[in-house]
Amino acid sequence: MRIAEVGDLAMLQLPNNKQTIFKLEADREYQTHKGSIFHNDLIGSPWGRDVETHLGTSYVFLPPTLHDLVRNTRRISQIIFPKDIGYILLRLSIGPGTRVLEAGTGSGALTTAFAWMVGEHGKVYSYDRREDMQDLSKQNLERVGLMDRVEFTLQDIADGIAEKDVDAVFLDLPRPELYLSQIHEVLANGGVLGTILPTTNQVSAFLRKIEEEHFDSADVAEILLRFYKPVAERLRPTDRMIAHTGYLVFARRMHTK
Amino acid sequence: MRIAEVGDLAMLQLPNNKQTIFKLEADREYQTHKGSIFHNDLIGSPWGRDVETHLGTSYVFLPPTLHDLVRNTRRISQIIFPKDIGYILLRLSIGPGTRVLEAGTGSGALTTAFAWMVGEHGKVYSYDRREDMQDLSKQNLERVGLMDRVEFTLQDIADGIAEKDVDAVFLDLPRPELYLSQIHEVLANGGVLGTILPTTNQVSAFLRKIEEEHFDSADVAEILLRFYKPVAERLRPTDRMIAHTGYLVFARRMHTK
Amino acid sequence: MRIAEVGDLAMLQLPNNKQTIFKLEADREYQTHKGSIFHNDLIGSPWGRDVETHLGTSYVFLPPTLHDLVRNTRRISQIIFPKDIGYILLRLSIGPGTRVLEAGTGSGALTTAFAWMVGEHGKVYSYDRREDMQDLSKQNLERVGLMDRVEFTLQDIADGIAEKDVDAVFLDLPRPELYLSQIHEVLANGGVLGTILPTTNQVSAFLRKIEEEHFDSADVAEILLRFYKPVAERLRPTDRMIAHTGYLVFARRMHTK
Amino acid sequence: MRIAEVGDLAMLQLPNNKQTIFKLEADREYQTHKGSIFHNDLIGSPWGRDVETHLGTSYVFLPPTLHDLVRNTRRISQIIFPKDIGYILLRLSIGPGTRVLEAGTGSGALTTAFAWMVGEHGKVYSYDRREDMQDLSKQNLERVGLMDRVEFTLQDIADGIAEKDVDAVFLDLPRPELYLSQIHEVLANGGVLGTILPTTNQVSAFLRKIEEEHFDSADVAEILLRFYKPVAERLRPTDRMIAHTGYLVFARRMHTK
Repeated sequence: MRIAEVGDLAMLQLPNNKQTIFKLEADREYQTHKGSIFHNDLIGSPWGRDVETHLGTSYVFLPPTLHDLVRNTRRISQIIFPKDIGYILLRLSIGPGTRVLEAGTGSGALTTAFAWMVGEHGKVYSYDRREDMQDLSKQNLERVGLMDRVEFTLQDIADGIAEKDVDAVFLDLPRPELYLSQIHEVLANGGVLGTILPTTNQVSAFLRKIEEEHFDSADVAEILLRFYKPVAERLRPTDRMIAHTGYLVFARRMHTK
Repeated sequence: MRIAEVGDLAMLQLPNNKQTIFKLEADREYQTHKGSIFHNDLIGSPWGRDVETHLGTSYVFLPPTLHDLVRNTRRISQIIFPKDIGYILLRLSIGPGTRVLEAGTGSGALTTAFAWMVGEHGKVYSYDRREDMQDLSKQNLERVGLMDRVEFTLQDIADGIAEKDVDAVFLDLPRPELYLSQIHEVLANGGVLGTILPTTNQVSAFLRKIEEEHFDSADVAEILLRFYKPVAERLRPTDRMIAHTGYLVFARRMHTK
Repeated sequence: MRIAEVGDLAMLQLPNNKQTIFKLEADREYQTHKGSIFHNDLIGSPWGRDVETHLGTSYVFLPPTLHDLVRNTRRISQIIFPKDIGYILLRLSIGPGTRVLEAGTGSGALTTAFAWMVGEHGKVYSYDRREDMQDLSKQNLERVGLMDRVEFTLQDIADGIAEKDVDAVFLDLPRPELYLSQIHEVLANGGVLGTILPTTNQVSAFLRKIEEEHFDSADVAEILLRFYKPVAERLRPTDRMIAHTGYLVFARRMHTK
Repeated sequence: MRIAEVGDLAMLQLPNNKQTIFKLEADREYQTHKGSIFHNDLIGSPWGRDVETHLGTSYVFLPPTLHDLVRNTRRISQIIFPKDIGYILLRLSIGPGTRVLEAGTGSGALTTAFAWMVGEHGKVYSYDRREDMQDLSKQNLERVGLMDRVEFTLQDIADGIAEKDVDAVFLDLPRPELYLSQIHEVLANGGVLGTILPTTNQVSAFLRKIEEEHFDSADVAEILLRFYKPVAERLRPTDRMIAHTGYLVFARRMHTK
């Protein structure tokens, strides 16, 4: 039986899938919209049980998954969504030991997933030129306990990238085509460059440049995620969905000379 | 500069995204539909270059990514697709060190991704009752060099599961609701159970049982992936797409007693 | 040049696609959230010009299309959406002269489109058992000037259908399979029956019955409509969309001796 | 009871939704891949019955709907699909009495739907510069008995449009923005212009010009149609679908001067 301990991240979930994540600390109280819960009542108790607030609202008490952590990233910018992150992981071939570079950091949702997957022997190099962004993403990574797997650099990558021979690169920037020659210096030959772009014009601008900058095998994809109401006798999609996050573009870094 | 070596998996890719993956071995010849290539001409040469067959067809020479490996899984059954696998990884919270159980193994596409992500300190327990399936998936895992991370069991899980307290479970079986009480024994409290089901009737049948079997927080999702022709001046979706692979259902294992 | 006249339906449209439709009447004033407009300033003026409220907000002044009328149907129930209506028209082969029967009337969005298309020589027979619904749909049809093409009956079709040999039937009811034998009596042999159903369980329940009730060639379809932000240099889908209205099911009425 | 007569268009449909449409003529024989059927056995018999070829294959014998006619348009070019046509009808406000202009004619699928809906008192003006295209579309319209509702002109609309004050215009041309000033001359003020464009670049190019050419209220939409296997106990989407036909763009013709 798995028991919640001091220092663990814990999640309370309502039937409507509303989630809240916090760290378990002795003698603290957690305030929800539906009443409060004492941490001491959670610490030392098994995961996967129902807990009630002092007002009688019932929550499910769970250890947050990577999906939950990403989805609940504290943000001051649009985050990359789980539907896109999962696919990016496969396309960029992220796994234990991978050295991956990203720019910009943003609020750190993708950074979290990368740090999770590269393990203790991998490394995430994360660049952003905005201090507020990077401070927030540091807090987010600290909170999920993955800070030691990330090296943050507060810098526009146009001003240089210190790393060499990284396994994969992901750009979440408005004009990724401007950095292609720099990325070519940094990314291992044969490695994958990925980017997410909201508009079709940005995709065209990016595609226009990749060949001359010695990238190849470009691929443009879009992922739509539709949830269903999980009711056995009235199974149907939810009424509304997110129609668009961005177009994902991937290309392979070619060897030159 | 990264160099291809004997024993590496190598991929040749055509402009139309047709891929072929094989292991580099001294003195061998690789036959494509467009002519042959000598392994010796690839071994010791940098990844990410163009190579030509003796008939003059040009391929890009690349190290396969996890996406490429999954997509090119040798199969005798429908495989789970990268679009679904990426999302499953996040939902099941797979990462370095995870102990995950799956049934059935099938051709081993999901097994490959799980094995990739759990690293040297994690483990994939994979059950299938069909010997031909499991033999093929063993070959597939052997080929990608991840065999030591998987423990295969040739058995219907209805006849028992040896493992205890695994972190996550994925079922790729026609009637997953039949195994819920067994999975409850095996999956850690608070852990995630996932399944993929082709028909809406199967989803309803599964949802009907989960509460009484002490699972909670069910979520049904469907992922659509649309590719675009990667042409800057004529950007548009491809004409056809895969309309359906399966509905993904996730639930959390609750603590009882 | 086309001029707006007293009695015409007029539409004011904001750049964000917010629309408002009303009838032009002498000496009246139209109140918008952004100020008022005098009908007399619109009457006698050309369609397709910009008009300003007394507070200076600019609207485009347009004759409403069928799409605009349907979309702005006054409602006390969920309406059938234009994306679905257009497809229904083709599947049911509606056109000038068609005699089509529908149940239930609902708020009258589909009724409006049917009445529009059947012309002066066609007829729409519309059944609903709820008086408030049918009163509203009558007002809606009156307003768009198509009332004379519709015969409303305030009755549950379980209690009988007066018409015979109609060209097409559309059912917007929770359990359409209950009425199949009645519809068989009413619909011409070879004619099309259509229905819209929100849940997969309803679709299965309907499909289960159609063959034994002598309907054939069943077809289930689902239409997704995605809008784009109409900005030349930043073309992209809108952030959110309607994920689901209903499954459309069509079948052909077979001849039985 | 409705009876098939000489001169009627008839449709034979297989369970897999394969359809074939032909005209009933005395003493003729219809050859299918699965054997032949004598027209005389169909003439005078009721619609909606099963008929067998001399080899014993069973077809459903039906009067084709507008959907069936459009879908089975004989083509030498890509046709506009029913999913798009239905929506176009509503957006362009086509109905009995409408005068609509289209260019190019193509194979005549949209022309057929327009001619069907405008009735005897409306008119379709259809321009194409390719004689083979227009000959085929004339044959297609002749065959469905709607030829008298269409005026074909074999001419590039760049060389002039004879009509004035039409209610709606649809352009199925690669660069519709080149004709905006001409369309402005032809389309009634307040009327709707629609177009279908395969690439995002074409949409941007069109949007770039509409304001300066005095069109307004542009709207870009995309329709996805997904079919389901109509099996009650195994309800699920078909494996593959058409991912893209084109982006639909609509705009309103503004009054000038």
